[in-house]
Amino acid sequence: MSDDMPTTQSSAVEVIDSRTHQSHFGHDDVAVEVPVALRYNCISHAVMMASPVDLEDFAIGFSLTEEIVSQRDHIYSVHVTPGPDGATIRMQIADDDFDALKSRRRNMIGRTGCGLCGTETLQQAIRPIPSVLAPTVSHVAVDRALNAIRKAQPINHLTGATHAAAWCTLAGEIVLVREDVGRHNALDKLIGALSGMTVDRQQGFVLVTSRASYEMVQKTCMAGIGCLVAISAPTSLAIEQARQAGLKLIGFARANKQVIYHDPAQLRRAI
Amino acid sequence: MSDDMPTTQSSAVEVIDSRTHQSHFGHDDVAVEVPVALRYNCISHAVMMASPVDLEDFAIGFSLTEEIVSQRDHIYSVHVTPGPDGATIRMQIADDDFDALKSRRRNMIGRTGCGLCGTETLQQAIRPIPSVLAPTVSHVAVDRALNAIRKAQPINHLTGATHAAAWCTLAGEIVLVREDVGRHNALDKLIGALSGMTVDRQQGFVLVTSRASYEMVQKTCMAGIGCLVAISAPTSLAIEQARQAGLKLIGFARANKQVIYHDPAQLRRAI
Repeated sequence: MSDDMPTTQSSAVEVIDSRTHQSHFGHDDVAVEVPVALRYNCISHAVMMASPVDLEDFAIGFSLTEEIVSQRDHIYSVHVTPGPDGATIRMQIADDDFDALKSRRRNMIGRTGCGLCGTETLQQAIRPIPSVLAPTVSHVAVDRALNAIRKAQPINHLTGATHAAAWCTLAGEIVLVREDVGRHNALDKLIGALSGMTVDRQQGFVLVTSRASYEMVQKTCMAGIGCLVAISAPTSLAIEQARQAGLKLIGFARANKQVIYHDPAQLRRAI
Repeated sequence: MSDDMPTTQSSAVEVIDSRTHQSHFGHDDVAVEVPVALRYNCISHAVMMASPVDLEDFAIGFSLTEEIVSQRDHIYSVHVTPGPDGATIRMQIADDDFDALKSRRRNMIGRTGCGLCGTETLQQAIRPIPSVLAPTVSHVAVDRALNAIRKAQPINHLTGATHAAAWCTLAGEIVLVREDVGRHNALDKLIGALSGMTVDRQQGFVLVTSRASYEMVQKTCMAGIGCLVAISAPTSLAIEQARQAGLKLIGFARANKQVIYHDPAQLRRAI
């Protein structure tokens, strides 16, 4: 089980106080980062760096947001095996999805560095984004969720090195949180966990402790969620995609201020 | 030229003051994020999301840190073409490097989501890291660089959405800064720019405004640089790799505190 792998480890450090020019030796908790290999029907697909926790959620969320399976119940089984070099996740998926994956792989022969992997042309880079229905999310609810999320990140509390993605009700209550050294992974873990629950995607929002880039918007919409709140900045492409999909996008969500970059309800009022 | 592409754009926003419950409409500068396609000798290789500035540096740095070319002068030409869908970078590289790239591509047929792209097994995930020589970097120099970098990030100043990577002298003076929506890209841009300058890599350090993950350490060592300073946290694998390569690794570099996660000089003193 992935949960047997430690998510933090102690590291010997020297801490320098820049004002007093004094230093002392001690220990610091750091976030564990391991390679995680994803295999579909016995075929190796990809390796990602991730926090070794909630890896089953990660595998399911990744498979859904990357459109490797068309629906949750096309994933028949998920087995996580920790090892000395990292974790391996073996999934059994429906024949149709696996055939589509194989033909996609044949068409995309690529050793890519990072980013939009396997994508070789600019036209392939931006995938079509599904439309979503944005709920009415009040700034009071966002505020409440912001206050609550601080205490709901055990790995980050120890290490200061991980991002979190949370599913919150329209009242601002946090229902579920997932953490990872990568912000995309944290969101995939959350979406994977949500896929196994009976949750009305119009009755809540996703809060992420990171920035909102294009891929964060893409993954949120792929999960049929209508509102994304990010503690940090969105990019131009994230805003553009939010407009296209009808996603409510809030950025720089802080204690005193929230910036709404797109709100379909506002447009409806204006018409 | 890539420099013709805007790096920020204005977005209509609604800003909510959570304390007074008032809101006002205005405009916010957001960081432009575009797909950037890399082509080697007329073959498409990868598409990455990036800030459309210093793309020539990016292409050179990426080619070096991802070991697509074995040395800078194996890149014969770099042409950046902006377009409506993003930017295309066309590079002409030495035949030997291109042959190696082609054979690597043949061996790695993969549509991968993100992370360590094209990598299919856990054993492939962690590339061998070259040894580096760590310089003596004082906390006073780090402090000076930290103070200076705030004013050296024009895109981040406007948008709050970009990371920076800077090359600093042992006195803490910032020589060169590169910005990007992606932290790996910012570092690749810096390394690309440095490769065209006569800079002694033992006479300075890299300062990044982000976390230090495994790939940040890997890229720094690939560039022959011996000290990496990160404003935020390192991961377990980053520390492990720093120890293996002999890289001095400082994290949580802030106004009042710096945490040294690995210092080869300290080990030498202890022996």
